[in-house]
Amino acid sequence: MNLLNPFYTQVDFKNGTFEPYEKKSKHYLSDLQGFFYFNDSLQEELKKEDRLVYEVYAREVPLEEGHLLHCITKIYPGDVGGEFFMTKGHFHQKIENAELYLCTSGKGLLNMQGVNGESSYIEMTRGVWSYIPPGWAHRTINIDDNTPFVFISVWPADSGYNYDKVLEEGFNKIFVKKANKEGYRIIVGK
Amino acid sequence: MNLLNPFYTQVDFKNGTFEPYEKKSKHYLSDLQGFFYFNDSLQEELKKEDRLVYEVYAREVPLEEGHLLHCITKIYPGDVGGEFFMTKGHFHQKIENAELYLCTSGKGLLNMQGVNGESSYIEMTRGVWSYIPPGWAHRTINIDDNTPFVFISVWPADSGYNYDKVLEEGFNKIFVKKANKEGYRIIVGK
Repeated sequence: MNLLNPFYTQVDFKNGTFEPYEKKSKHYLSDLQGFFYFNDSLQEELKKEDRLVYEVYAREVPLEEGHLLHCITKIYPGDVGGEFFMTKGHFHQKIENAELYLCTSGKGLLNMQGVNGESSYIEMTRGVWSYIPPGWAHRTINIDDNTPFVFISVWPADSGYNYDKVLEEGFNKIFVKKANKEGYRIIVGK
Repeated sequence: MNLLNPFYTQVDFKNGTFEPYEKKSKHYLSDLQGFFYFNDSLQEELKKEDRLVYEVYAREVPLEEGHLLHCITKIYPGDVGGEFFMTKGHFHQKIENAELYLCTSGKGLLNMQGVNGESSYIEMTRGVWSYIPPGWAHRTINIDDNTPFVFISVWPADSGYNYDKVLEEGFNKIFVKKANKEGYRIIVGK
């Protein structure tokens, strides 16, 4: 058996950095076309500025069963017409695969939607480690006005991504800012 | 598709606690019979006191491909004839399965041994996230005299454990205390 050499990454829990990494991706408002519920607000925003919404640092491993992909994600504070900055969200292509999210800094929500239309969410603060069982689409949301929301993820390397179902059907629950105070309220999505 | 409900755990990075959990296991010196290189010292220790070496809090998930087991481990400071307190160490029964260890507090070593006799180790301090590729036995060691070494682990739920090969062959590298100063030195094992 030919072995891959062990390796490690230095994670900064607070700042959401990760060294070394093979992949860094930055996601701007323009990359999230179709994902925000308030699409008109998104188009208005884009006329002003194409803001950075979130960034991801990831390690590369073979995309085979038994290996584990792992990354750190940092979602910046912000909103589009009241809808908080968030990740696109996706199902795994291989629907039998779970995922783990551990918050290391900030305050967010993990919004989940089951293949049969089920809905669930978990509030994420430092030390909250959430299990996304097989069959749940997952999206993360920064609900703090001032601080980035940082979390690390682990998922089986053969999972793949399905963004189409989320784009077509949306999430049942949409989280928006409360007017003039802290916190969030839930509106029914598409 | 019948979905399992999402759930979460509150992790204390510093103290190594984990709430809620389904399994908590405590491992005493007597449970580590056969794993220490200095077996005579272990027997001497046991005549005095059967000290607690490490404890593990874990969540239960179905032991099936696609699911991810996850736990937190706390290794107490201490040694047996100079050999630091450590976990037993094991290979995965399903040798194709990787594992991830993230240190959240303290100072330790991740000692690894490949199926063909390869040897590798990584120093673990807060934020060091180590990848144990398929085919490597893994054991963790607390190299700090005063502070517990705390880390979280993620591995595929269908991995299983093989302790026998470690018991029979031992690890190539054994880590022992430096006399009268901080740090460790390596001696060749069995």
